[in-house]
Amino acid sequence: MIRYPNGSEGPVLPKKNKNPNLANAANRGMGLEAAINNANAYYNDKQIALITKRPTPINIVKVDYTKGARITDAYFEHQSTTDYNGIYRGRYLDFEAKSTRSKTSFPLGNISVHQIAHLKRVIKQGGIAFFIICFSVLDEYFVIDASYVIDCFENSAKKSISLETIKKVGCSIRQGFTPRLFYLEAVDQLYFKESLL
Amino acid sequence: MIRYPNGSEGPVLPKKNKNPNLANAANRGMGLEAAINNANAYYNDKQIALITKRPTPINIVKVDYTKGARITDAYFEHQSTTDYNGIYRGRYLDFEAKSTRSKTSFPLGNISVHQIAHLKRVIKQGGIAFFIICFSVLDEYFVIDASYVIDCFENSAKKSISLETIKKVGCSIRQGFTPRLFYLEAVDQLYFKESLL
Repeated sequence: MIRYPNGSEGPVLPKKNKNPNLANAANRGMGLEAAINNANAYYNDKQIALITKRPTPINIVKVDYTKGARITDAYFEHQSTTDYNGIYRGRYLDFEAKSTRSKTSFPLGNISVHQIAHLKRVIKQGGIAFFIICFSVLDEYFVIDASYVIDCFENSAKKSISLETIKKVGCSIRQGFTPRLFYLEAVDQLYFKESLL
Repeated sequence: MIRYPNGSEGPVLPKKNKNPNLANAANRGMGLEAAINNANAYYNDKQIALITKRPTPINIVKVDYTKGARITDAYFEHQSTTDYNGIYRGRYLDFEAKSTRSKTSFPLGNISVHQIAHLKRVIKQGGIAFFIICFSVLDEYFVIDASYVIDCFENSAKKSISLETIKKVGCSIRQGFTPRLFYLEAVDQLYFKESLL
Protein backbone atom coordinates (compact mmCIF):
# COMPACT_ATOMS: atom_id res chain seq x y z
CA MET A 1 0.00 0.00 0.00
CA ILE A 2 1.25 3.44 -0.82
CA ARG A 3 1.43 5.86 2.10
CA TYR A 4 0.96 9.52 1.39
CA PRO A 5 2.78 12.34 3.16
CA ASN A 6 -0.30 13.31 5.12
CA GLY A 7 -0.52 9.78 6.47
CA SER A 8 -3.76 9.04 4.69
CA GLU A 9 -4.22 6.34 2.14
CA GLY A 10 -4.97 8.62 -0.74
CA PRO A 11 -4.84 12.22 -1.88
CA VAL A 12 -7.32 14.62 -0.38
CA LEU A 13 -9.40 15.77 -3.30
CA PRO A 14 -11.51 18.90 -3.06
CA LYS A 15 -15.07 17.88 -2.29
CA LYS A 16 -18.06 19.77 -3.54
CA ASN A 17 -20.73 20.19 -0.93
CA LYS A 18 -23.88 19.62 -2.93
CA ASN A 19 -26.25 20.20 -0.04
CA PRO A 20 -25.19 23.09 2.20
CA ASN A 21 -27.73 21.98 4.83
CA LEU A 22 -25.62 18.94 5.44
CA ALA A 23 -22.64 21.08 6.40
CA ASN A 24 -23.40 20.97 10.11
CA ALA A 25 -23.68 17.21 10.26
CA ALA A 26 -20.67 16.79 7.99
CA ASN A 27 -18.59 19.04 10.24
CA ARG A 28 -18.50 16.42 12.97
CA GLY A 29 -17.27 13.71 10.69
CA MET A 30 -14.65 15.74 8.88
CA GLY A 31 -11.16 14.35 8.73
CA LEU A 32 -8.34 15.39 10.98
CA GLU A 33 -6.71 17.52 8.30
CA ALA A 34 -9.93 19.39 7.57
CA ALA A 35 -10.53 19.92 11.30
CA ILE A 36 -7.05 21.42 11.77
CA ASN A 37 -7.36 23.57 8.66
CA ASN A 38 -10.68 24.78 10.04
CA ALA A 39 -9.08 25.64 13.40
CA ASN A 40 -6.19 27.40 11.66
CA ALA A 41 -8.59 29.47 9.53
CA TYR A 42 -10.38 30.47 12.75
CA TYR A 43 -7.18 31.32 14.64
CA ASN A 44 -5.74 33.21 11.65
CA ASP A 45 -8.97 35.12 11.13
CA LYS A 46 -9.17 36.11 14.81
CA GLN A 47 -5.46 37.04 14.68
CA ILE A 48 -4.78 34.65 17.55
CA ALA A 49 -2.06 32.87 15.60
CA LEU A 50 -0.80 32.38 12.06
CA ILE A 51 -0.48 28.70 11.27
CA THR A 52 -0.47 27.22 7.80
CA LYS A 53 -0.40 23.80 6.26
CA ARG A 54 2.45 23.03 3.93
CA PRO A 55 1.04 21.81 0.62
CA THR A 56 1.70 18.16 -0.21
CA PRO A 57 4.83 18.13 -2.35
CA ILE A 58 4.25 16.78 -5.81
CA ASN A 59 6.88 15.80 -8.31
CA ILE A 60 5.88 17.03 -11.73
CA VAL A 61 6.86 14.85 -14.66
CA LYS A 62 4.95 16.37 -17.56
CA VAL A 63 3.12 19.62 -18.20
CA ASP A 64 0.93 20.24 -21.21
CA TYR A 65 1.41 23.88 -22.16
CA THR A 66 -1.07 23.68 -25.03
CA LYS A 67 -3.79 23.30 -22.38
CA GLY A 68 -2.66 26.32 -20.35
CA ALA A 69 -0.04 24.56 -18.27
CA ARG A 70 -2.05 21.53 -17.24
CA ILE A 71 -0.10 18.90 -15.34
CA THR A 72 -0.59 15.59 -17.12
CA ASP A 73 1.86 13.41 -15.24
CA ALA A 74 3.02 13.76 -11.64
CA TYR A 75 3.31 11.82 -8.42
CA PHE A 76 3.13 12.41 -4.69
CA GLU A 77 6.38 12.97 -2.85
CA HIS A 78 7.05 12.36 0.80
CA GLN A 79 6.95 15.49 2.92
CA SER A 80 10.44 15.84 4.38
CA THR A 81 9.09 18.09 7.12
CA THR A 82 5.89 18.20 9.12
CA ASP A 83 2.55 19.33 7.77
CA TYR A 84 2.02 22.48 9.83
CA ASN A 85 4.02 25.42 11.11
CA GLY A 86 3.50 29.01 12.10
CA ILE A 87 3.66 31.57 14.87
CA TYR A 88 1.72 31.79 18.15
CA ARG A 89 2.35 34.13 21.09
CA GLY A 90 5.50 35.23 19.26
CA ARG A 91 6.87 31.68 19.25
CA TYR A 92 7.58 29.41 16.30
CA LEU A 93 5.28 26.36 16.27
CA ASP A 94 5.76 23.19 14.24
CA PHE A 95 3.62 20.09 14.40
CA GLU A 96 2.45 16.96 12.72
CA ALA A 97 -1.08 15.59 12.91
CA LYS A 98 -1.68 11.85 13.01
CA SER A 99 -4.79 9.77 13.22
CA THR A 100 -5.29 6.22 14.43
CA ARG A 101 -8.30 3.92 14.49
CA SER A 102 -6.92 2.14 17.54
CA LYS A 103 -8.88 2.61 20.76
CA THR A 104 -5.97 1.93 23.08
CA SER A 105 -2.68 3.24 21.68
CA PHE A 106 -0.96 5.34 19.03
CA PRO A 107 1.35 3.29 16.78
CA LEU A 108 4.72 4.98 16.24
CA GLY A 109 4.99 3.37 12.80
CA ASN A 110 2.78 6.25 11.66
CA ILE A 111 5.70 8.65 12.02
CA SER A 112 8.52 8.95 9.49
CA VAL A 113 12.21 9.27 10.31
CA HIS A 114 12.23 12.56 8.36
CA GLN A 115 9.55 14.02 10.61
CA ILE A 116 11.46 13.02 13.74
CA ALA A 117 14.65 14.63 12.36
CA HIS A 118 12.75 17.79 11.46
CA LEU A 119 11.10 18.11 14.89
CA LYS A 120 14.44 17.60 16.63
CA ARG A 121 15.78 20.54 14.64
CA VAL A 122 12.78 22.65 15.62
CA ILE A 123 13.45 21.94 19.31
CA LYS A 124 17.15 22.68 18.85
CA GLN A 125 16.24 26.09 17.36
CA GLY A 126 14.00 26.92 20.31
CA GLY A 127 10.69 26.29 18.59
CA ILE A 128 7.64 24.52 19.99
CA ALA A 129 7.24 21.05 18.50
CA PHE A 130 4.34 18.70 19.06
CA PHE A 131 1.99 16.12 17.61
CA ILE A 132 -1.76 16.30 17.38
CA ILE A 133 -3.00 12.76 17.78
CA CYS A 134 -6.52 11.80 16.84
CA PHE A 135 -8.18 8.62 18.10
CA SER A 136 -10.78 8.64 15.36
CA VAL A 137 -13.02 5.86 16.67
CA LEU A 138 -13.11 7.40 20.15
CA ASP A 139 -13.39 10.93 18.68
CA GLU A 140 -10.67 12.13 21.07
CA TYR A 141 -7.81 14.46 20.21
CA PHE A 142 -4.59 15.25 22.07
CA VAL A 143 -1.58 17.53 21.88
CA ILE A 144 1.60 15.77 22.96
CA ASP A 145 5.07 17.31 23.13
CA ALA A 146 7.35 16.12 20.32
CA SER A 147 10.32 15.48 22.63
CA TYR A 148 8.33 12.78 24.44
CA VAL A 149 7.35 11.12 21.16
CA ILE A 150 10.92 11.40 19.82
CA ASP A 151 12.21 9.73 22.97
CA CYS A 152 9.74 6.84 22.57
CA PHE A 153 10.52 6.60 18.85
CA GLU A 154 14.26 6.39 19.41
CA ASN A 155 14.65 4.66 22.77
CA SER A 156 11.59 2.62 23.57
CA ALA A 157 11.23 -1.04 22.77
CA LYS A 158 7.49 -0.49 22.47
CA LYS A 159 6.13 0.41 19.08
CA SER A 160 3.27 2.51 20.33
CA ILE A 161 2.27 4.99 23.02
CA SER A 162 -0.74 3.95 25.08
CA LEU A 163 -3.78 6.20 25.26
CA GLU A 164 -3.34 6.17 29.04
CA THR A 165 0.17 7.62 28.71
CA ILE A 166 -0.98 10.19 26.15
CA LYS A 167 -3.68 11.33 28.60
CA LYS A 168 -1.03 11.71 31.30
CA VAL A 169 1.78 13.31 29.28
CA GLY A 170 -0.27 15.24 26.71
CA CYS A 171 -3.29 17.46 26.88
CA SER A 172 -6.78 16.71 25.61
CA ILE A 173 -8.17 19.04 22.93
CA ARG A 174 -11.55 20.60 23.60
CA GLN A 175 -13.95 20.17 20.68
CA GLY A 176 -16.54 22.61 19.52
CA PHE A 177 -18.19 23.92 16.46
CA THR A 178 -16.13 27.00 15.54
CA PRO A 179 -13.42 26.02 15.54
CA ARG A 180 -13.87 22.28 15.51
CA LEU A 181 -10.67 21.81 17.58
CA PHE A 182 -9.49 24.33 20.16
CA TYR A 183 -6.01 22.91 19.96
CA LEU A 184 -4.21 26.11 20.97
CA GLU A 185 -5.83 25.81 24.42
CA ALA A 186 -3.96 22.54 24.81
CA VAL A 187 -0.78 24.26 23.55
CA ASP A 188 -1.33 26.92 26.22
CA GLN A 189 -1.57 24.25 28.91
CA LEU A 190 1.60 22.51 27.80
CA TYR A 191 3.84 25.46 26.86
CA PHE A 192 2.44 28.73 28.20
CA LYS A 193 1.20 27.79 31.64
CA GLU A 194 3.18 30.57 33.31
CA SER A 195 1.83 33.30 31.07
CA LEU A 196 -1.70 32.12 31.85
CA LEU A 197 -1.38 32.71 35.60
CA MET B 1 0.90 34.59 -19.92
CA ILE B 2 0.25 32.41 -16.92
CA ARG B 3 2.07 33.40 -13.75
CA TYR B 4 3.02 30.70 -11.33
CA PRO B 5 3.02 31.07 -7.54
CA ASN B 6 6.79 31.20 -7.42
CA GLY B 7 6.74 34.16 -9.78
CA SER B 8 8.45 32.28 -12.56
CA GLU B 9 6.99 31.64 -15.95
CA GLY B 10 6.78 27.91 -15.60
CA PRO B 11 7.05 25.06 -13.14
CA VAL B 12 10.47 24.24 -11.82
CA LEU B 13 11.13 20.74 -13.02
CA PRO B 14 13.83 18.64 -11.46
CA LYS B 15 16.94 18.87 -13.60
CA LYS B 16 19.34 16.04 -14.06
CA ASN B 17 22.93 17.14 -13.95
CA LYS B 18 24.48 15.07 -16.69
CA ASN B 19 27.99 16.36 -16.21
CA PRO B 20 28.94 16.80 -12.56
CA ASN B 21 32.02 18.82 -13.59
CA LEU B 22 29.71 21.56 -14.76
CA ALA B 23 28.22 21.93 -11.28
CA ASN B 24 30.58 24.70 -10.23
CA ALA B 25 29.92 26.85 -13.26
CA ALA B 26 26.21 26.13 -13.10
CA ASN B 27 26.09 27.20 -9.46
CA ARG B 28 26.64 30.84 -10.37
CA GLY B 29 23.80 30.91 -12.83
CA MET B 30 21.28 29.07 -10.70
CA GLY B 31 17.92 30.67 -10.21
CA LEU B 32 16.90 32.61 -7.16
CA GLU B 33 14.82 29.75 -5.78
CA ALA B 34 17.67 27.28 -6.12
CA ALA B 35 20.08 29.75 -4.49
CA ILE B 36 17.78 30.21 -1.49
CA ASN B 37 17.14 26.47 -1.19
CA ASN B 38 20.91 26.00 -1.25
CA ALA B 39 21.36 28.58 1.51
CA ASN B 40 18.58 26.98 3.57
CA ALA B 41 20.13 23.54 3.22
CA TYR B 42 23.41 25.03 4.45
CA TYR B 43 21.84 26.89 7.39
CA ASN B 44 19.71 23.86 8.35
CA ASP B 45 22.69 21.53 8.12
CA LYS B 46 24.86 23.81 10.28
CA GLN B 47 21.91 24.18 12.71
CA ILE B 48 22.08 27.95 12.29
CA ALA B 49 18.40 28.12 11.40
CA LEU B 50 15.54 25.96 10.18
CA ILE B 51 13.93 27.47 7.12
CA THR B 52 11.89 25.57 4.55
CA LYS B 53 10.20 26.30 1.28
CA ARG B 54 6.51 25.64 1.09
CA PRO B 55 5.82 23.36 -1.87
CA THR B 56 3.89 24.91 -4.76
CA PRO B 57 0.23 24.08 -4.15
CA ILE B 58 -1.29 21.96 -6.84
CA ASN B 59 -4.94 21.24 -7.35
CA ILE B 60 -5.40 17.60 -8.21
CA VAL B 61 -8.21 16.77 -10.60
CA LYS B 62 -7.57 13.13 -11.47
CA VAL B 63 -5.47 10.33 -10.03
CA ASP B 64 -4.91 7.02 -11.77
CA TYR B 65 -4.77 4.39 -9.05
CA THR B 66 -4.12 1.58 -11.52
CA LYS B 67 -0.69 3.14 -12.08
CA GLY B 68 0.15 3.36 -8.37
CA ALA B 69 -1.54 6.68 -7.70
CA ARG B 70 -0.17 8.64 -10.61
CA ILE B 71 -1.60 12.12 -11.00
CA THR B 72 -2.92 12.42 -14.54
CA ASP B 73 -4.67 15.78 -14.35
CA ALA B 74 -3.85 18.73 -12.11
CA TYR B 75 -3.08 22.42 -12.23
CA PHE B 76 -1.01 24.97 -10.36
CA GLU B 77 -2.70 26.99 -7.65
CA HIS B 78 -1.67 30.38 -6.37
CA GLN B 79 0.25 30.28 -3.12
CA SER B 80 -1.90 32.15 -0.63
CA THR B 81 1.11 32.69 1.61
CA THR B 82 4.78 33.35 1.00
CA ASP B 83 7.25 30.76 -0.24
CA TYR B 84 9.49 30.48 2.82
CA ASN B 85 9.19 30.37 6.58
CA GLY B 86 11.05 29.00 9.56
CA ILE B 87 12.89 29.79 12.76
CA TYR B 88 16.11 31.73 13.34
CA ARG B 89 17.58 32.90 16.66
CA GLY B 90 14.37 31.68 18.27
CA ARG B 91 12.27 34.02 16.11
CA TYR B 92 9.69 33.15 13.47
CA LEU B 93 10.81 34.22 9.98
CA ASP B 94 8.61 34.53 6.92
CA PHE B 95 9.68 35.82 3.54
CA GLU B 96 9.05 35.94 -0.16
CA ALA B 97 11.75 35.93 -2.82
CA LYS B 98 11.32 37.94 -5.99
CA SER B 99 13.49 38.44 -9.01
CA THR B 100 13.55 41.25 -11.55
CA ARG B 101 15.51 41.78 -14.75
CA SER B 102 15.31 45.54 -14.28
CA LYS B 103 18.62 47.28 -13.54
CA THR B 104 17.09 50.26 -11.77
CA SER B 105 14.00 49.30 -9.75
CA PHE B 106 11.86 46.50 -8.36
CA PRO B 107 8.31 46.49 -9.79
CA LEU B 108 5.65 46.00 -7.09
CA GLY B 109 3.39 44.29 -9.62
CA ASN B 110 5.47 41.20 -8.85
CA ILE B 111 3.80 40.91 -5.44
CA SER B 112 0.31 39.51 -4.91
CA VAL B 113 -2.32 40.94 -2.58
CA HIS B 114 -2.40 37.59 -0.77
CA GLN B 115 1.29 37.81 0.02
CA ILE B 116 0.90 41.34 1.39
CA ALA B 117 -2.00 40.21 3.60
CA HIS B 118 0.00 37.22 4.84
CA LEU B 119 3.09 39.29 5.69
CA LYS B 120 0.96 41.84 7.56
CA ARG B 121 -0.32 38.98 9.70
CA VAL B 122 3.22 37.78 10.34
CA ILE B 123 4.21 41.25 11.58
CA LYS B 124 1.05 41.46 13.71
CA GLN B 125 2.02 38.14 15.36
CA GLY B 126 5.52 39.39 16.16
CA GLY B 127 7.34 37.52 13.41
CA ILE B 128 10.09 38.81 11.15
CA ALA B 129 8.81 39.47 7.64
CA PHE B 130 10.90 40.46 4.65
CA PHE B 131 11.53 40.13 0.95
CA ILE B 132 14.62 38.87 -0.77
CA ILE B 133 14.92 40.83 -3.99
CA CYS B 134 17.20 39.70 -6.77
CA PHE B 135 18.35 42.03 -9.54
CA SER B 136 19.25 39.17 -11.84
CA VAL B 137 21.02 41.17 -14.57
CA LEU B 138 23.14 43.01 -11.99
CA ASP B 139 23.61 39.79 -9.95
CA GLU B 140 22.76 41.73 -6.76
CA TYR B 141 20.57 40.50 -3.91
CA PHE B 142 18.93 42.38 -1.04
CA VAL B 143 16.91 41.75 2.09
CA ILE B 144 14.27 44.43 2.62
CA ASP B 145 11.82 44.63 5.53
CA ALA B 146 8.27 43.69 4.53
CA SER B 147 6.70 46.63 6.35
CA TYR B 148 8.52 49.04 4.02
CA VAL B 149 7.36 47.13 0.94
CA ILE B 150 3.80 46.88 2.30
CA ASP B 151 3.75 50.63 2.85
CA CYS B 152 4.89 51.28 -0.75
CA PHE B 153 2.41 48.69 -2.06
CA GLU B 154 -0.52 50.25 -0.24
CA ASN B 155 0.26 53.95 -0.08
CA SER B 156 2.71 54.92 -2.79
CA ALA B 157 1.67 56.25 -6.16
CA LYS B 158 4.83 54.71 -7.61
CA LYS B 159 4.61 51.20 -8.89
CA SER B 160 8.16 50.23 -8.08
CA ILE B 161 10.92 50.70 -5.52
CA SER B 162 14.15 52.09 -6.92
CA LEU B 163 17.40 50.17 -6.51
CA GLU B 164 18.79 53.26 -4.81
CA THR B 165 16.07 53.13 -2.15
CA ILE B 166 16.51 49.38 -1.69
CA LYS B 167 20.23 49.94 -1.09
CA LYS B 168 19.37 52.56 1.54
CA VAL B 169 16.48 50.81 3.32
CA GLY B 170 17.49 47.20 2.82
CA CYS B 171 20.69 45.27 3.23
CA SER B 172 22.84 43.77 0.49
CA ILE B 173 23.35 40.00 0.60
CA ARG B 174 26.91 38.75 0.50
CA GLN B 175 27.45 36.07 -2.13
CA GLY B 176 29.74 33.10 -1.89
CA PHE B 177 30.02 29.53 -2.87
CA THR B 178 28.66 27.63 0.15
CA PRO B 179 26.11 28.89 0.64
CA ARG B 180 25.50 30.85 -2.51
CA LEU B 181 23.66 33.58 -0.55
CA PHE B 182 24.55 34.51 3.03
CA TYR B 183 21.15 36.07 3.45
CA LEU B 184 20.94 35.55 7.23
CA GLU B 185 23.86 37.99 7.61
CA ALA B 186 21.60 40.63 6.08
CA VAL B 187 18.78 39.52 8.41
CA ASP B 188 21.20 39.99 11.33
CA GLN B 189 21.97 43.54 10.18
CA LEU B 190 18.31 44.45 9.86
CA TYR B 191 16.77 42.66 12.86
CA PHE B 192 19.43 41.53 15.32
CA LYS B 193 21.85 44.43 15.37
CA GLU B 194 21.68 44.72 19.16
CA SER B 195 22.48 41.08 19.77
CA LEU B 196 25.52 41.41 17.51
CA LEU B 197 27.14 44.13 19.62
